[in-house]
Amino acid sequence: MTQVYNFGAGPAMLPAEVMKKAQAEFLDYQGMGAGVIEISHRSDEFDAVLNRCDELLKELAGIPDNYKILYVHGGAQMQFSAVPLNLLGLSATKSASYIETGTWGVKARKEAARYGNATTAASSADTGFDRIPEFDVSSLPADTAYLHITSNNTLYGTRWHSFPQTGTIPLVADMTSEFLSREIDISQFGIIFAGLQKNLGPAGLALVIVREDLLGHALKETPSLLDYSVYAGSHSLANTTTLLLFT
Amino acid sequence: MTQVYNFGAGPAMLPAEVMKKAQAEFLDYQGMGAGVIEISHRSDEFDAVLNRCDELLKELAGIPDNYKILYVHGGAQMQFSAVPLNLLGLSATKSASYIETGTWGVKARKEAARYGNATTAASSADTGFDRIPEFDVSSLPADTAYLHITSNNTLYGTRWHSFPQTGTIPLVADMTSEFLSREIDISQFGIIFAGLQKNLGPAGLALVIVREDLLGHALKETPSLLDYSVYAGSHSLANTTTLLLFT
Repeated sequence: MTQVYNFGAGPAMLPAEVMKKAQAEFLDYQGMGAGVIEISHRSDEFDAVLNRCDELLKELAGIPDNYKILYVHGGAQMQFSAVPLNLLGLSATKSASYIETGTWGVKARKEAARYGNATTAASSADTGFDRIPEFDVSSLPADTAYLHITSNNTLYGTRWHSFPQTGTIPLVADMTSEFLSREIDISQFGIIFAGLQKNLGPAGLALVIVREDLLGHALKETPSLLDYSVYAGSHSLANTTTLLLFT
Repeated sequence: MTQVYNFGAGPAMLPAEVMKKAQAEFLDYQGMGAGVIEISHRSDEFDAVLNRCDELLKELAGIPDNYKILYVHGGAQMQFSAVPLNLLGLSATKSASYIETGTWGVKARKEAARYGNATTAASSADTGFDRIPEFDVSSLPADTAYLHITSNNTLYGTRWHSFPQTGTIPLVADMTSEFLSREIDISQFGIIFAGLQKNLGPAGLALVIVREDLLGHALKETPSLLDYSVYAGSHSLANTTTLLLFT
């Protein structure tokens, strides 16, 4: 076999040693006689996978203890809906602000507009997203549920080198294209989310790191499986454990 | 290695020949030098995977041409939200009816209640879900968006042997525990959905088979990635192609 490299902006290559280990264990995980996708998500063996994943992420990314790590459905784009559904309740006027440095930020704002007032705080759309736009944090209304940014937009090369200091307004960052590829101070953020398909895992899953005080404010119309508190309360095994939580 | 059998009600065993083929191709799909999870979802090779999956499902399940096959996020439980979000718009009073033959049906109704009037048309809860309850189709109000059933509930052994004839009211069935394990007449249903983890694939994905005339009625508060018409219009590659559809 010839090893190749996929430099496309979509799903990317995973480290060869990771892929080889997954392949070797595919039919028989730790002598169980079944693959890890075939065993119960409530088994001790799968619980150990989840716990180890948490530990490694905390260590690699420096995630403080007052943040929850969630493994969620739908990739990063589903979080364009989940973030406003979970956070707009923090604002009396259901308002949130977006800084747009590429089409993903625009799309995220349009999704939020289904549920409240989603406004563009700054944008470089008029010059083809060729830069991070000027932005004055003091221009944000006090009643802002959160400020949303895309930390790096590979298509345009618009990358935040340092992040806006938003004080008490939670900063939300879509870090899909670069999570774990640079050191960041997690405590600057209310929520960080990332689709896994770039360098962390298969397409369809996303990682959400959320500060604990932002849980529990979901709007009434939030589907249970987009409510971050449901994931936080079930160690991301919400699909079956919500039966216990909600009945 | 010792082959085992997992008879648990959660994730189940996949056929050994399927697992072996997936393992053999894990690092190098069709000589591409990368695994199928590492290549672009817009490549000809992945397109062929999707098309073949459609063909096989149509053949095995006898899916008529006026139905769309969707591969969606969140497992079956996410469809407890998606079904009302997509169909309640068919009813002037946003009403839907549920027949409850286990806890999943109850949970599905509670999710629907976030978006409209979700009522229990019949239930065997009072006797511990020990049977399929008596039900008179003529008792359904004319303005009913759909009737929801769970075709088989393994925990209680409540299985529909024949299905209610609902006329012009779409019948929606959660077939997670038995899809592809019995012959059914798909044309009796408006929507069939099933989580894949029982006998079709890994946990987290779901299959939705929807009659075409039921697309395009999603409520305004429907997240884009729960809108079945978005999946139908993008061959289930909505996460990135919605950029093209919506901007």
